[in-house]
Amino acid sequence: MADKTWKTAITEIEPNKIKLRGYPLDELMGNRSFADVVYLALRGELPTPKVGKLIDAMLVSSIDHGVTPPSVLTAMTVASTGASLNSAVAAGILAISKFHGGAIEACMAILQEAKGLVDSGRSTDEAAESLVSSYKEKKKRMSGFGHRVHTNDPRTPRLFELAEEAEHSGIYIELIKAIESALDKSAGKKLPVNVDGAIAAVLCELDFWKNLANAFFIMARVPGLVAHVAEEQERQRPMRTIISAEHEYDGPAERHLEE
Amino acid sequence: MADKTWKTAITEIEPNKIKLRGYPLDELMGNRSFADVVYLALRGELPTPKVGKLIDAMLVSSIDHGVTPPSVLTAMTVASTGASLNSAVAAGILAISKFHGGAIEACMAILQEAKGLVDSGRSTDEAAESLVSSYKEKKKRMSGFGHRVHTNDPRTPRLFELAEEAEHSGIYIELIKAIESALDKSAGKKLPVNVDGAIAAVLCELDFWKNLANAFFIMARVPGLVAHVAEEQERQRPMRTIISAEHEYDGPAERHLEE
Amino acid sequence: MADKTWKTAITEIEPNKIKLRGYPLDELMGNRSFADVVYLALRGELPTPKVGKLIDAMLVSSIDHGVTPPSVLTAMTVASTGASLNSAVAAGILAISKFHGGAIEACMAILQEAKGLVDSGRSTDEAAESLVSSYKEKKKRMSGFGHRVHTNDPRTPRLFELAEEAEHSGIYIELIKAIESALDKSAGKKLPVNVDGAIAAVLCELDFWKNLANAFFIMARVPGLVAHVAEEQERQRPMRTIISAEHEYDGPAERHLEE
Amino acid sequence: MADKTWKTAITEIEPNKIKLRGYPLDELMGNRSFADVVYLALRGELPTPKVGKLIDAMLVSSIDHGVTPPSVLTAMTVASTGASLNSAVAAGILAISKFHGGAIEACMAILQEAKGLVDSGRSTDEAAESLVSSYKEKKKRMSGFGHRVHTNDPRTPRLFELAEEAEHSGIYIELIKAIESALDKSAGKKLPVNVDGAIAAVLCELDFWKNLANAFFIMARVPGLVAHVAEEQERQRPMRTIISAEHEYDGPAERHLEE
Repeated sequence: MADKTWKTAITEIEPNKIKLRGYPLDELMGNRSFADVVYLALRGELPTPKVGKLIDAMLVSSIDHGVTPPSVLTAMTVASTGASLNSAVAAGILAISKFHGGAIEACMAILQEAKGLVDSGRSTDEAAESLVSSYKEKKKRMSGFGHRVHTNDPRTPRLFELAEEAEHSGIYIELIKAIESALDKSAGKKLPVNVDGAIAAVLCELDFWKNLANAFFIMARVPGLVAHVAEEQERQRPMRTIISAEHEYDGPAERHLEE
Repeated sequence: MADKTWKTAITEIEPNKIKLRGYPLDELMGNRSFADVVYLALRGELPTPKVGKLIDAMLVSSIDHGVTPPSVLTAMTVASTGASLNSAVAAGILAISKFHGGAIEACMAILQEAKGLVDSGRSTDEAAESLVSSYKEKKKRMSGFGHRVHTNDPRTPRLFELAEEAEHSGIYIELIKAIESALDKSAGKKLPVNVDGAIAAVLCELDFWKNLANAFFIMARVPGLVAHVAEEQERQRPMRTIISAEHEYDGPAERHLEE
Repeated sequence: MADKTWKTAITEIEPNKIKLRGYPLDELMGNRSFADVVYLALRGELPTPKVGKLIDAMLVSSIDHGVTPPSVLTAMTVASTGASLNSAVAAGILAISKFHGGAIEACMAILQEAKGLVDSGRSTDEAAESLVSSYKEKKKRMSGFGHRVHTNDPRTPRLFELAEEAEHSGIYIELIKAIESALDKSAGKKLPVNVDGAIAAVLCELDFWKNLANAFFIMARVPGLVAHVAEEQERQRPMRTIISAEHEYDGPAERHLEE
Repeated sequence: MADKTWKTAITEIEPNKIKLRGYPLDELMGNRSFADVVYLALRGELPTPKVGKLIDAMLVSSIDHGVTPPSVLTAMTVASTGASLNSAVAAGILAISKFHGGAIEACMAILQEAKGLVDSGRSTDEAAESLVSSYKEKKKRMSGFGHRVHTNDPRTPRLFELAEEAEHSGIYIELIKAIESALDKSAGKKLPVNVDGAIAAVLCELDFWKNLANAFFIMARVPGLVAHVAEEQERQRPMRTIISAEHEYDGPAERHLEE
């Protein structure tokens, strides 16, 4: 039978030794953050400390967005039938698809298209305007802009600030801001960069493989799904009719990190 | 219809404000690690920096263990049919169940039982010996000890060391070591604490809810599953017959963190 | 490595021959119904024609129950994110768990317990009354009785009638009716046998393995889930907020089979 | 909030009445086969008895194909970790994707393209040859032809025979046979219509929505997955290393339906 011998470059297991991309796991433990090691697992190399911090921030930015996203409704509904936690989380992940989380990958494609225009001689503004009118003509929606709830998504400027600090604020972040301006001119209404767009731009800056965009959102959101599933199991009775909109927040009031 | 109004204490969403357990996400970004924020999402409070570092280390310890675990075989098999990355990861999570990952929760139950014996006046050694002989009598397997590949799992002493540094090495870690000794005496062969057992002991030290044990493993392993799915998509042809044992590692040779 | 040689008794594949439990598939095609062949796959033997018809009727009885069950909400929610049909159906199946579909298995356990009492000399009425008071005492709910919507589930008497015709109406159907009466006397309110209870009794009559109860419901409900997913994809826009209760039926008006 | 009132045309629930596409379920039970009612759920109308029998035969044709397909390996692997039956089946369904089961939809697309050529004046042979050379030129694989194991898939002629009996053997079956001949001439080797191709042609004859092709395969295969999961739970020990190829069939020897 063909194809029985195959290769993997991720983890090497020997008795009493587990090496991820060459590094012993026990050496990484306590010396590198989980975010650093996630980057190592996906990219093959450890990030610089600044990039590691940026990865941490991106994962934090998408950990949860309350009970209304479909992945949470799915996970809570499955949990309410008495299913195990892993089943509920798996179901939630099945809802992280084209229209939920998928905007990151779609926006990366837009930014790479724009970058192509810049590479062939256009200015960032020209590239942005050209793309915006082409999308308008084809009546296609530009992923990564606008938000159902937030007119100024607070995660966006914070992420751009951290990319700046990490010395990874370049052409892609310029381009996404130029597209935001072009959309404003073209549509006559503000469609500011949302968190998906901001993550897309930073992943482009970090030269991430586009196919990992959805993975990035999944890794960030799994702990959020776990929290909602655990809360469903603790606080709610089985088989309730879950209407996302009819909830009330009863957790801690706004508070801030101590200096 | 009953039950339409319900409460959640996880995340509060207002226009231009996303607060996790009260903290604005954009304030957490760049100031707290993902591991810290995972702890916040699940426990309601931020960990101390030392505990945060311990959480980081536990997540790192379980991020991947090569291609043989059933969750990886499942995820790669689904990916090989041309399924989307989120489907493949979700399928992998469905394999993180009673006998794969489940040892953490099972071992937490053993440690809590042992702690009960100590609370009622036994010494740690007496508690350990009593449990070991009771399990032996009932022919039940003790979860958290022994490993198919490793005779001395390198992650175990490292985790105990970090728990010590975090000032969270207490009765549960004493108890698991006492059980290891008692098993040695009783079975006449070494069944050392494996990484599941070590995580179980540390989660007990941190007073984690037992039902979150499996969740902890899932959160740690998702990036590993993503790496294997992405590698399958990049390097392998569709519908190959995957035989875990017939692989070869062709990644970087052993290397070490720079001082 | 141990365990590499293993056995299966389900399907034998040879070039140009596919035999299910010994029967060539192409010989079954057109000569036996899908329900007959489902029984063959699960039980190893073909059913009598009457039993085959009973299997058909049980599968028909559970094919769909509108948009409110959690499996349907889950499947539609996943579909609304742009996920593939198989992902949406898989997510729906994850919601067919302890409290949704699980009543069949739980009721089979009750009926087997009751049968044990009869085998040890009690009358059916005594067995029923004894179980009902024991459940009442322990404040445990009896699965298979009562329904949120139906006071007289029309599927129940129809299934019992077909079991009678198939000459498979015996002690378990007697027992479930006796329990219904005992519940009525004990609770002072009608808790009639629901479709889960009726299927449980018939599966007991047919000597089905209890662990297949949930499977039976899954096999019956998958086409219903498919219909809802396809309708979601055809008729609805992505990422809508799905509130089960706020739907309206706009399909064909009541109609009947022609004689 | 928009979109709260929505419509469904599948099932109407009233107290003590469940109507699928207008027909009371209890009236369908015992009078119509499950295959008929599956057709009703998906298409909105009951099939003629001959078409119902054809649906039955198609579902039977795909119920199982032994332990080697990836959906079975996935389901057995998940079951071997101690997961619940519904989790194992859901995981199996996630493997019914583009390259496994997906050939039905891909082949329907080919047949519809060929039909377009016929509609615009070509003969069936011309249409077939034109498509075959266009696919050859683009180096695209034609789905629905050839099989890893079977040189003459016994299910194909049987299905065509039953389509003939059901008076639904028309242009699409002619076209798929013409493509088979054209492939033979072009490639110089036999690539006979496989069961996916045969089902694709019959679904086209029945005017099925292409998006339901994968659903059709899922509905047929779920009982097969259930059988394998149940066998894994009954006969195998947890966490075994499953190598599909290393199995042996130990079920009943070849046998035939009695006349």
